[in-house]
Amino acid sequence: MAQIDRERSATRIARDIQTLSGRSYTTTDEAIRRYAYTPEYRRTLDYFTGELRSLGFDVSEDPVGTLVARNRPPGEAVFGIGSHCDSNRNGGRYDGTLGVVTALEVCRLSSELGLDLPLQLISFLEEEGSGYGQMLLGSRIMLQRVSEDDLRERFRSIDDGRSFWEHAEEAGYEPARWRESIHVLDDLTGWIEMHIEQARVLQDREKRIGIVNAIAGYVHADVTVHGRGDHAGATPMDLRLDPTLVLADTAIELERLATAAGQGTVGTIGEIEVDPGLINAIASSVRFSLDIRGPVDEAYLGVADEIGTFAVASAERRGMRAEVTTRQTLAVTRLDRGIVDALLRHAEGSGEPYMEMHSGAAHDTMCVAERIPSAMVFVPCVDGISHHPAEDADPADAALAAEIILGAIGDLA
Amino acid sequence: MAQIDRERSATRIARDIQTLSGRSYTTTDEAIRRYAYTPEYRRTLDYFTGELRSLGFDVSEDPVGTLVARNRPPGEAVFGIGSHCDSNRNGGRYDGTLGVVTALEVCRLSSELGLDLPLQLISFLEEEGSGYGQMLLGSRIMLQRVSEDDLRERFRSIDDGRSFWEHAEEAGYEPARWRESIHVLDDLTGWIEMHIEQARVLQDREKRIGIVNAIAGYVHADVTVHGRGDHAGATPMDLRLDPTLVLADTAIELERLATAAGQGTVGTIGEIEVDPGLINAIASSVRFSLDIRGPVDEAYLGVADEIGTFAVASAERRGMRAEVTTRQTLAVTRLDRGIVDALLRHAEGSGEPYMEMHSGAAHDTMCVAERIPSAMVFVPCVDGISHHPAEDADPADAALAAEIILGAIGDLA
Repeated sequence: MAQIDRERSATRIARDIQTLSGRSYTTTDEAIRRYAYTPEYRRTLDYFTGELRSLGFDVSEDPVGTLVARNRPPGEAVFGIGSHCDSNRNGGRYDGTLGVVTALEVCRLSSELGLDLPLQLISFLEEEGSGYGQMLLGSRIMLQRVSEDDLRERFRSIDDGRSFWEHAEEAGYEPARWRESIHVLDDLTGWIEMHIEQARVLQDREKRIGIVNAIAGYVHADVTVHGRGDHAGATPMDLRLDPTLVLADTAIELERLATAAGQGTVGTIGEIEVDPGLINAIASSVRFSLDIRGPVDEAYLGVADEIGTFAVASAERRGMRAEVTTRQTLAVTRLDRGIVDALLRHAEGSGEPYMEMHSGAAHDTMCVAERIPSAMVFVPCVDGISHHPAEDADPADAALAAEIILGAIGDLA
Repeated sequence: MAQIDRERSATRIARDIQTLSGRSYTTTDEAIRRYAYTPEYRRTLDYFTGELRSLGFDVSEDPVGTLVARNRPPGEAVFGIGSHCDSNRNGGRYDGTLGVVTALEVCRLSSELGLDLPLQLISFLEEEGSGYGQMLLGSRIMLQRVSEDDLRERFRSIDDGRSFWEHAEEAGYEPARWRESIHVLDDLTGWIEMHIEQARVLQDREKRIGIVNAIAGYVHADVTVHGRGDHAGATPMDLRLDPTLVLADTAIELERLATAAGQGTVGTIGEIEVDPGLINAIASSVRFSLDIRGPVDEAYLGVADEIGTFAVASAERRGMRAEVTTRQTLAVTRLDRGIVDALLRHAEGSGEPYMEMHSGAAHDTMCVAERIPSAMVFVPCVDGISHHPAEDADPADAALAAEIILGAIGDLA
């Protein structure tokens, strides 16, 4: 493959990010905040449209506003790249947008190196849910994972309570044709999404590139422990039914089980609610959340089962009662071995430190992978901070990702 | 001692409680709610005043509104009995009021049995803090445990934000003479307060009477654990700094330490605050409260020291940092052995099941005991429920308490 000037790529990527962090592209100057159908989001799509058209790409949008740009006519095979360019409400410069910018850089490199790879760039609508409280909305619409009633009635603007449908129409789209969005995938032979990692694995392992082979599945559940609210001063230790102790038992056991399960399994108690929550009252009940994930279904599902059983048994042993209710489960998304291997080869060829890993966070690729062989590439973000104005990443890592993706597509397309 | 008709006493006590639970004596019909300077509280004092005057007692109020009734002229020795007749805002019929009603029954019995014991009944103002957010306010004023600035400025009405001072003057009192309240104690040779237990020790041990030999001291403190807020899905178990695990370690160790310390020591985590408190986020920090009490200063203070050290060490071991800050400490109030022994003798003589115990909850007697030899008598409350409309107690137990108190005072006065 022709020699790539990484520094020039990094400079272009930095310039794109700088531009899209400007005041025209965010609805507030305290963070990056842009979401579907705002003028700031429109201007962001317009920026990419202009850049891609200058490379000879044909740019359009699907019936709800997902951006699609390709350098081959309909019916001809293309390889998909992209991410999303909306942000969460208190967002930073990189989450999503760096992936679209890097895909744009792949298009630029393909063109200026004379490779003319068959490419289709996609920037999905509303990945973050900032507009309508619905994550992965553009890709879920594309994969028909919503209902018409969701779009017409249930999904409502956080700002004004009006429906997604109404806003889409007002912005000039044709939501009534939403089912046609699936045709965006018609000619795709593969898909690679690049994204910041959103955790600190790459930073802590001193890697510049992560090649993602799976997106974790998860169980979200709640445990409620029913104890007995008594006076904290007047109730002897042997007459108590204190539900915070079942929480304590369960937290320590969850750490043990997740660690023992290995294979990337993780378990977290993120929400704790104590009733009544007074310094001088033994709690009458405690509710806490369970977030249990991993890239191997058997492993994290096993931990989820075991910890539920454990919590109930711990409560019983202490004379109390606990119940476990599942909020949501989602199976592991396995990514395509062929694409992952091609990316690994070019990561190795780059001479830079990289690793194979899974994604613990959700991405549009979870939807795309249902139909299209897919993979992802991660770059480090400083201290794992994302969804925050302090979010930071290195354009040089993105340039390296662009080079690796370009190489892999060269092998595959 | 003359034969006491326990059933008649129980009937009178039940009638008093019934009367004082009527709509004229509470500001809401959803609970018993009465506090200083409300018409409902005024009517409650008037009820006791009328009953006590009919027994020949001289009834007055101290400069802020604590009721004082005696059957001997100033300067003659009297034995003190009583409690408080304000309620907490969502209160029941018995907390405080049953103690004053039982003291009234002691006065009745002394009179009708021809004993003519030298008695002084006190009903303290604002024990519950419902009016001004200040617990034990009447007894703290009496024992000079407040400052003039507290009364004039700092203590403000929960209802309207105006000062205690202003409300007291408006109700016809002379708060400027608050320091004279101490003279209420001038002629007291002893003090016995009867109260519902507010826990379930008596119920669970199947006792009708508790003779209280000490009121627990306590340490109130907060532990803040500083972890690192990371993505719950994307952060491997070995890269986490999850402060909820330090909470878990500490909760289990607190249970162990308090149980091992024995001698009535108890420890409770009643408040837990997780930041940010999202199912998919490892907490960046956790704050939790410690309430550690007991009737033996060395024992509970030892546990408080050890658990603070433990929490800091647990955080360090896990790569985090914890800090412990004390909110408040209060030493044990030791009650008078002579009065306790007299009460125990008469409890034994009653033929009913009783026990010697300590109080885990705070009472006005903590203040009185600073100057006057004091003791308390507890009666069971159903399931330990207090500070709630469901609060329930048996007037027959209160009648038994009246008989025992009468007998003890007969020996002592």
